[in-house]
Amino acid sequence: MAKKFETLRASMKPEARARADAKARAMLVEMPLAELRQARGLSQKVLAEVLHVQQPSIAKMEKRTDMYISTLRSHIEAMGGELEVVARFPDGAVKINNFTDIGAAPT
Amino acid sequence: MAKKFETLRASMKPEARARADAKARAMLVEMPLAELRQARGLSQKVLAEVLHVQQPSIAKMEKRTDMYISTLRSHIEAMGGELEVVARFPDGAVKINNFTDIGAAPT
Repeated sequence: MAKKFETLRASMKPEARARADAKARAMLVEMPLAELRQARGLSQKVLAEVLHVQQPSIAKMEKRTDMYISTLRSHIEAMGGELEVVARFPDGAVKINNFTDIGAAPT
Repeated sequence: MAKKFETLRASMKPEARARADAKARAMLVEMPLAELRQARGLSQKVLAEVLHVQQPSIAKMEKRTDMYISTLRSHIEAMGGELEVVARFPDGAVKINNFTDIGAAPT
């Protein structure tokens, strides 16, 4: 069985293997913002209302690959969540709290 | 003993109590970027060299309460770490991977 797993791993592209390792290590589900919104059972329309923006802004925002931490925080808080910014090192992880004073309380 | 703990908790400001709760829940050390750099045994000078910027830029950056995720990622990667963006909900946590394609390989 262990052999088979190794065979499978060997057939994976290095990037895919690194991604799988990272996932296993973190033991967290990983997904983009749009998928997370759907998983929370929310529509773009509802989220737009909570954030007092137009629906296309949500669509655009979900496609972005970079944004201000404060923007992301508002977005996640609008879904009922809390943003955590973590720096992971081989010997441990640290939560960065430079950003926790701003936008802590949404709406 | 439980009584004493409760007494202590009751004497805490609500914000301090919320912070303590959040810390306990996440079981992660929490600190600002400057403290993290020191904990990694790095000087502003060394970090500035890795990031090809001037030392005052690092000083300024460490005081910021908001920044682009890509900027933060470069900063953390320059310290030898990896940035994780997590949305935490009462029923679980999700790693947001909208941002993982950009700036994945530093320097």
